[in-house]
Amino acid sequence: MQFEYLSQNKAYGGTQYVCSHASASTGTDMTLSVYVPPHRPEERLPVLWYLSGLTCTHANVTEKGEYRAACAEHGIVLVAPDTSPRGADVPDAPDEYDFGKGAGMYLDATQDPWSANYRMRTYLEDELPALIAAEFPVSQTRQAITGHSMGGHGALTMALRNPGRFRSVSAFSPIVAPSQVPWGEKAFSRYLGEDRTAWRAYDAVALIEDGARLDHLLVDQGTADQFLEEQLKPGLLSMACAKAGMQPEIRMWEGYDHSYYFISTFMGEHVAWHAARLR
Amino acid sequence: MQFEYLSQNKAYGGTQYVCSHASASTGTDMTLSVYVPPHRPEERLPVLWYLSGLTCTHANVTEKGEYRAACAEHGIVLVAPDTSPRGADVPDAPDEYDFGKGAGMYLDATQDPWSANYRMRTYLEDELPALIAAEFPVSQTRQAITGHSMGGHGALTMALRNPGRFRSVSAFSPIVAPSQVPWGEKAFSRYLGEDRTAWRAYDAVALIEDGARLDHLLVDQGTADQFLEEQLKPGLLSMACAKAGMQPEIRMWEGYDHSYYFISTFMGEHVAWHAARLR
Repeated sequence: MQFEYLSQNKAYGGTQYVCSHASASTGTDMTLSVYVPPHRPEERLPVLWYLSGLTCTHANVTEKGEYRAACAEHGIVLVAPDTSPRGADVPDAPDEYDFGKGAGMYLDATQDPWSANYRMRTYLEDELPALIAAEFPVSQTRQAITGHSMGGHGALTMALRNPGRFRSVSAFSPIVAPSQVPWGEKAFSRYLGEDRTAWRAYDAVALIEDGARLDHLLVDQGTADQFLEEQLKPGLLSMACAKAGMQPEIRMWEGYDHSYYFISTFMGEHVAWHAARLR
Repeated sequence: MQFEYLSQNKAYGGTQYVCSHASASTGTDMTLSVYVPPHRPEERLPVLWYLSGLTCTHANVTEKGEYRAACAEHGIVLVAPDTSPRGADVPDAPDEYDFGKGAGMYLDATQDPWSANYRMRTYLEDELPALIAAEFPVSQTRQAITGHSMGGHGALTMALRNPGRFRSVSAFSPIVAPSQVPWGEKAFSRYLGEDRTAWRAYDAVALIEDGARLDHLLVDQGTADQFLEEQLKPGLLSMACAKAGMQPEIRMWEGYDHSYYFISTFMGEHVAWHAARLR
């Protein structure tokens, strides 16, 4: 048994698990949540990965994301990892909400002191999928990914770097071009160093400019999002996709902000959209 | 303006408000949440009151209750008050989760030092409905009430004491006979004194024994609820209703516990059930 179960609660006919495990990638214990909908014995279910935003843990979407109704209806497992390594020995920037713990940026850091633990890319691309497949009734060939804000950045870049792994990709209010905005410039310069060529593997717009493609991409963005103009800049994604011949659905929603009130409003649609592509 | 708005977020086409106001009943500021679904200008909407359980504030159901989808679909305003007075000057029992702040038991305390502030009955029966009606687009003739655990107790007893005010009543995992269980015996003896005749106005089973009736009553209860046998005892409600000729729907759900994972699973059904009776 790789996982220690911290809680399990019946919900919408399935089970919401919260569990932790020792991660070889980060050198820390990592906590995550996994929702398994009602299913037949022996059935292997499609998986939707949900990557969270700055300051979040697995708990935010688990409590406020309102995904279980749709996951139960469509038979989708939802996995929600943490956003960074945690623990007393992990380097941190405790006065900064947008760097250090809670702000792993879904990359493998190369700079001291961050490179020892801040290895969320390896954790999520290589380590965790195998552990999930060994422990839960999931299909390794039917995977999709979504996320919010920093986690939308994570979802887009993980999918762009791993062609064919995810049948569909969506994001709520994603950071689409971290190399061009304050959150990303701050984090990348410290995690990855000042050489910006190393940043391109962690920037959705740069990855598309460099030739990566996605077939099925859905982005939802609120017009009242307080981070829209300075940090998110969905127009940069639209332009990169247009130049690349990609046809994403990028939807702007009047009056919605950056919160889970926005995410939960459209979560059911995202789950259904992925489910249609995972069948 | 009676209310100070602490936050407002667009959700499911409507608005989730969190606001506070100075309460004459409790002598404190009180915080609550109000969800207003999308509606036509000038339209007055039916209201569902949601009373929360021990240790909760307005925030628990607002974040984890998953009611907004159904409220938007059915055009229902949901009001979620706090569970007790709050503030540095309010007497408390800080080491007890089931007494004092967060545990107002929806009564008017008569014993010192509790009687000055712990007046949740007057607050919810008399003061807050008028404030809500003055501030939000609600119908005063189409009201319903629900709640969880201690709040299920609150919903049942408020409805039983006020015939005709609520068209329908439901509860998740309610304390149906507080006079007969440890939570209630502890709280009532200290808020109300040792004379048990004064307790009967705050005990659903006793109110039914004393002649109060409800026409439309729905109760959902999980079989894996850790408080089922000692504190909740839905069988006492079933028996009292049978003797009184009432025909409630009391549904037992295999494997569900006392948490919001249970509440959220059935919240949509409760909202729809009330909506059908509020038309």
